[in-house]
Amino acid sequence: MNDKILSISRRTRETPYSRRVEAAGVKGYTVYNHMLLPTFFDSNEADYWSLCEDVQVWDVSCERQIEVVGPDSERLIQLMTPRDISKASIGQGLYAPLCDENGGIVNDPVLIKFASDDWWISIADSDVRLWARGLAQGFGFDVQIREAAIWPLAVQGPKAEELVTRVFGDEVPGIRFFRSKMLEYKGKPMMVMRSGYSKQGGFEIYLNDADLAEPLWDELFARGQDLKVRAGGPNLIERIESGLLSYGNDMNYSHNPFECGLDAFIDLDADIDSMSLPALRALAGKHLHQLVGLVFEQPVEFAGYAVIADNRVVADVRSQVWSPRYRKYLAMAMMRRDFLAENQSLTVDGKIGRIVDLPFDFDAIC
Amino acid sequence: MNDKILSISRRTRETPYSRRVEAAGVKGYTVYNHMLLPTFFDSNEADYWSLCEDVQVWDVSCERQIEVVGPDSERLIQLMTPRDISKASIGQGLYAPLCDENGGIVNDPVLIKFASDDWWISIADSDVRLWARGLAQGFGFDVQIREAAIWPLAVQGPKAEELVTRVFGDEVPGIRFFRSKMLEYKGKPMMVMRSGYSKQGGFEIYLNDADLAEPLWDELFARGQDLKVRAGGPNLIERIESGLLSYGNDMNYSHNPFECGLDAFIDLDADIDSMSLPALRALAGKHLHQLVGLVFEQPVEFAGYAVIADNRVVADVRSQVWSPRYRKYLAMAMMRRDFLAENQSLTVDGKIGRIVDLPFDFDAIC
Repeated sequence: MNDKILSISRRTRETPYSRRVEAAGVKGYTVYNHMLLPTFFDSNEADYWSLCEDVQVWDVSCERQIEVVGPDSERLIQLMTPRDISKASIGQGLYAPLCDENGGIVNDPVLIKFASDDWWISIADSDVRLWARGLAQGFGFDVQIREAAIWPLAVQGPKAEELVTRVFGDEVPGIRFFRSKMLEYKGKPMMVMRSGYSKQGGFEIYLNDADLAEPLWDELFARGQDLKVRAGGPNLIERIESGLLSYGNDMNYSHNPFECGLDAFIDLDADIDSMSLPALRALAGKHLHQLVGLVFEQPVEFAGYAVIADNRVVADVRSQVWSPRYRKYLAMAMMRRDFLAENQSLTVDGKIGRIVDLPFDFDAIC
Repeated sequence: MNDKILSISRRTRETPYSRRVEAAGVKGYTVYNHMLLPTFFDSNEADYWSLCEDVQVWDVSCERQIEVVGPDSERLIQLMTPRDISKASIGQGLYAPLCDENGGIVNDPVLIKFASDDWWISIADSDVRLWARGLAQGFGFDVQIREAAIWPLAVQGPKAEELVTRVFGDEVPGIRFFRSKMLEYKGKPMMVMRSGYSKQGGFEIYLNDADLAEPLWDELFARGQDLKVRAGGPNLIERIESGLLSYGNDMNYSHNPFECGLDAFIDLDADIDSMSLPALRALAGKHLHQLVGLVFEQPVEFAGYAVIADNRVVADVRSQVWSPRYRKYLAMAMMRRDFLAENQSLTVDGKIGRIVDLPFDFDAIC
């Protein structure tokens, strides 16, 4: 497909940063949680090098925070995820698949225990709010559920810690991965977490006052000039190289977490009331597909998404990109496990691709 | 904002018609129910005249069909909407807001009673499936809920009946508005309903076999050549002139159906088990805002969406467009009712706009 224009309307919601994003020269968007998500400013490749070498500021307001408050908040959250959340501490983030009664993945958010009766679900692209409200209504839980007025801003890249420290102070370097501190910006405390959708390191600032969006953006750019700060967004090349999953791309509601290699986030033996656990216990080891990496030495033209071998569809290509760093063509594909058991490679477009585990291990591959 | 590129991926799902849509020269898309929706092919205005004078074929696959099957299907559907569905007949479509326990609008779909235990929810842009599954799980309803493999294709415009009759036969003209017949295409029966998101007349074909998408598309174009058939999509000019609401644009989850003028679709006195009715009964007549039309004689530049008068925000502009037919600038705005009670006009950008009821009555306006 050639480039197409995105028709923007109120339904594809703008963010408090949108004017700055536009002024920074955004060229592409996607729509994520009914909201604009900037995808690239210069080009995917130029943005990639800036992210890996310096520091970028990303408008990730579309990571909407579904806030669940009330006496039954933890009970509802636990019902929605097969990961045991009972030991989470205040301010901690937990990556956790949300799964329905069949084990299907509804979303793969970061759960944040903001206070003992106040959980935030930092969602990927599906209306988790509606699912949570349906469950709460049906089970009669005592909770309030809302999309909070929080507008996350990510600062990502090797120089992110330096930049965020300049703006938020000396407590920043002491924040551990997926932990947060409440730090003041212009007198207003807001959550700063070491997290973000890249493997280049960085932070997410959970801005809680839309009026501070432009001042914060401007200050990050003013203080980061010598660090070569640029506007950016989740980068297709970097996230595939890093094996970061994207809900809706690499997996969706029709998949279960075993197929996606999310076994570590399922507490099969935990004594918790999670609606997906019975189904997941029955599924364990019996799932038919596995998300794998494919590595080709040259660019590959997939004909559609289905990969055919032995006269049957053996894989469904979910994401793909040329890696300028490794000079390889990388794909993520949902592959039949019976094919996987007997093959370490496959042929697409006349080129042989290696089948590898995710995340990609470039020391082994190169 | 200048034109931006839409970054397309698996998450912004393609449809069985996508290759034909691309070949027809689509220039813009939006993302709707996580799926590509073509917005224009030539220009909004050229597409508008083609729609109003001839006939267009629209890929509206993004009108996903959430199918609710089982003994409790009608009970669940009724719980979700304040419209009394008990008298619906098989094959009938019912426009019906879905509302939560606070009266907030979750979606404004067309409900279709496909069979006595089989309802289709032809959804606007929100994940109704998740809400329905949450409710069904919590209440313990005996239903199956799935996004059906149905790919609606709309044929719209004054020549639509002629074109659909040529392809589906002589039973087509006898189909009444929002009624359907099961008609065969290449030996396969599929639902054909007189409906669609324009006021130019037409049909929606609920294609149930993706392999027939391209043959159907091709046949409509081959048989419609003399009717000047064109590819199109929901047209911003036409839908605003016609006062057709767009969920996410003109209203969202924060609004209730009274604010949107949907009173006719709320059966306040019905003896039905609908979760929103208690809240809606309490709200009736007490809602603070009303969706109205604004009419300006010249193009208007709104500064943002908030309209200020008497030093306060009196309206939130939701949709706007220049009407080439009426030579007026039209907007739909959510307005404070106390302002509305005392004003028949307001000033924006130095220009006076009339405040009118929706849908626009151009005989009165012009």
